[in-house]
Amino acid sequence: MNDQILTLLEEKNYHQLKILLSQMNEADIASILVDAPEDALPLLYRILPKELASDVFVNMDSDTQEILIKAFSDKELREVLDELYVDDAVDIIEEMPATVVKRILQHTDPEVRKSINEILKYPEDSAGSLMTIEFVDLKKYMTVDDAFTRIRRTGVDKETIYVCYVTDENRKLLGLVTVKDLLLSDKSKKMFEIMETNVIYVSTLEDKEIVADKFQKYDLMAIPVVDNEHRLVGIVTFDDAMDVLQEENTEDIEKMAAITPTDKPYLKMGVFETWKKRFPWLLLLMVSATFTGKIIQNFESALQAQIVLTSFIPMLMDTGGNCGGQASVTIIRGLSLGDIDYRDVFKVIWKEFRVAFLCGITLAIASFLKLMYIDHVDILVALTVCVTMIITIICAKFVGSTLPILAKRIGFDPAVMASPFITTIVDAISLVLYFEVAGLILKI
Amino acid sequence: MNDQILTLLEEKNYHQLKILLSQMNEADIASILVDAPEDALPLLYRILPKELASDVFVNMDSDTQEILIKAFSDKELREVLDELYVDDAVDIIEEMPATVVKRILQHTDPEVRKSINEILKYPEDSAGSLMTIEFVDLKKYMTVDDAFTRIRRTGVDKETIYVCYVTDENRKLLGLVTVKDLLLSDKSKKMFEIMETNVIYVSTLEDKEIVADKFQKYDLMAIPVVDNEHRLVGIVTFDDAMDVLQEENTEDIEKMAAITPTDKPYLKMGVFETWKKRFPWLLLLMVSATFTGKIIQNFESALQAQIVLTSFIPMLMDTGGNCGGQASVTIIRGLSLGDIDYRDVFKVIWKEFRVAFLCGITLAIASFLKLMYIDHVDILVALTVCVTMIITIICAKFVGSTLPILAKRIGFDPAVMASPFITTIVDAISLVLYFEVAGLILKI
Repeated sequence: MNDQILTLLEEKNYHQLKILLSQMNEADIASILVDAPEDALPLLYRILPKELASDVFVNMDSDTQEILIKAFSDKELREVLDELYVDDAVDIIEEMPATVVKRILQHTDPEVRKSINEILKYPEDSAGSLMTIEFVDLKKYMTVDDAFTRIRRTGVDKETIYVCYVTDENRKLLGLVTVKDLLLSDKSKKMFEIMETNVIYVSTLEDKEIVADKFQKYDLMAIPVVDNEHRLVGIVTFDDAMDVLQEENTEDIEKMAAITPTDKPYLKMGVFETWKKRFPWLLLLMVSATFTGKIIQNFESALQAQIVLTSFIPMLMDTGGNCGGQASVTIIRGLSLGDIDYRDVFKVIWKEFRVAFLCGITLAIASFLKLMYIDHVDILVALTVCVTMIITIICAKFVGSTLPILAKRIGFDPAVMASPFITTIVDAISLVLYFEVAGLILKI
Repeated sequence: MNDQILTLLEEKNYHQLKILLSQMNEADIASILVDAPEDALPLLYRILPKELASDVFVNMDSDTQEILIKAFSDKELREVLDELYVDDAVDIIEEMPATVVKRILQHTDPEVRKSINEILKYPEDSAGSLMTIEFVDLKKYMTVDDAFTRIRRTGVDKETIYVCYVTDENRKLLGLVTVKDLLLSDKSKKMFEIMETNVIYVSTLEDKEIVADKFQKYDLMAIPVVDNEHRLVGIVTFDDAMDVLQEENTEDIEKMAAITPTDKPYLKMGVFETWKKRFPWLLLLMVSATFTGKIIQNFESALQAQIVLTSFIPMLMDTGGNCGGQASVTIIRGLSLGDIDYRDVFKVIWKEFRVAFLCGITLAIASFLKLMYIDHVDILVALTVCVTMIITIICAKFVGSTLPILAKRIGFDPAVMASPFITTIVDAISLVLYFEVAGLILKI
């Protein structure tokens, strides 16, 4: 598709190009424009039919938006800004350099500018920073007919019209009415008669993770955002909640791999920036791993007596790390989905103990057979390795499953307690166990 | 909240209980019922106002649903089934034992039973298995007024009325009209005049991951599902897409931790089942790790000459594993979000090389200082460790970033190429490097 567009662009066949683009979806056009050569970008954008242009603009990444804004005339900029929802405008502004922000705000309608500035004041990652102020509000004595009149009159600029909110004279949230309710109700019914008063809402300062969780739990299409006085100040719609859900998942995954989370796509991040997100964790883990080295040093004489023991260290450490990692990641995910909570800690420990026992026994048997019949090592050495393995696995599953729960309990992020940290801890445990068991069985 | 309900239940104060429950949200009531003692469950459920009961039922987990179905009279069962959307009924049936399924199907309306059986035929995880057949379909010559009449007449049972689909006499999908379009259009306009014909759709056999991706990309409220002849057979709504998104994320996270994915919550899974999901990977990784042991055996004489080298093995292996894990997880996530694709492989390699170089140098300097001034080891040993570290990190980042892309390219799941596998590979690489560097610097 992109080739076809490039060809048309080279042939300067703008008429055909316009026809082709206007048949496409805005998100697809945005992907094409993002990949287009930078100098062709303003031209391609200007070809778009007016009613598509601003939708395409919203779907592009911030770098491309910045190039376009810089190429826009004041009139063009104003045309785009007029079509944006306030929450989208805020998202764009948050990514732009100061000079561009200044120019954007200069060309925004004063009313909207005020709203943008309001939203910009909310802390990053709060419900307030995520919301839009373009919702339909109704009054409690309006009839169904009045409501439809209001929706018809104001609805075109609203992010959603399907959930309308009933507020009192002080903008306090009283209830909600869906368009489905309106369509299926008698035309003379009043809002207070048909509205749902048991409304799920969030407050402006609540974390966006909680917003996404509520969408997930209650299958909402939109959620109202209220201030301290329970006044309705905005709404968050499901498409934004879905984006938050994905961002939160990415963050969790990055934390589990010992990376400081970021919301920038990988290829957009500088090398130095990537290094800054990864290095501190590597350093911390490296320093922790030196303790494992100390343990080996303490048992150097044992190793010198039985150098063959050294060759099983990686296998024991890796298996321990993998077992711990499996447990920790399962528990972290369960905590984040709400399947597990602190009160389940003993259930979790008991379950992991039995799973660990099964894993330990089966892996030890497999190891033992291999050590005896393939590697032909001494039976006492094989026993040392296998007994260590069973105990290591039990310890690893214990550590892996309890640390995330503990972390959550004391207010830390459980996602950090994933494989890298668990591995470092389990490494030390497995080595101490190894040498202790070797001492007992091999008498060294 | 739960305590209050338990107290009321013990006091047999059903009147108060009913008032309390009817003020609550269905998802919250469902969580309470799931935690309730099994013998109180049918009683609590029967207290619920009729119009709430089936919504609560849908929100419960399948174990609780099974208990309730078994306690239901035929009449009660029919009442619940009548209120269910077909996709929810299918979800429930898929989790029930055969006897319960049989009883459910016996008490389902024949028309609905036919639809359920149709949907059950689609492969698990396909768009067809996910869809509901309860959508509003319109014809192209209907006016806006006709459309509203149809929505008012049939809308109460539809999962969404906000997106309506225009089909021809053979049920082929022609376009879509939103209720917003309808409300903002002239009443005499015909559907073909106002409908959007550039419709994003999926086919019945497409994977549910693709369904979720399209929701995410195009910010959809619902997506139509068509068969081979482009006939509209159902729709998937955003709330189901959000659930799919979470399931896919959980699957990816589990694969990254070397666990066979499952859609059962952790606490609902048996010990043996959990073992089965974890053991094969542990075994595979353990066997792979024995190669690392072989490498150590080959260099036993070198180790015996300089036993101090042994104590740095865990740190080198862990650091390599962590570096590789960081790279692989970042790339896997980028691939799954569509930020990275196969064509970016050289960009990725070049970027990871520079990041690795920075990480390597900085970690090596930190290590060198520690080894010299805290551990007081020989300068040549310190050099051996630090040079190995730099090369290991570069290799680890290379392996970690390329393997997921390669896996995806040859049609494998990139998520499997995460920390556990990368660690196993990097362990072997780091040890070979270590002994080679030691041979060069320490002449052993």
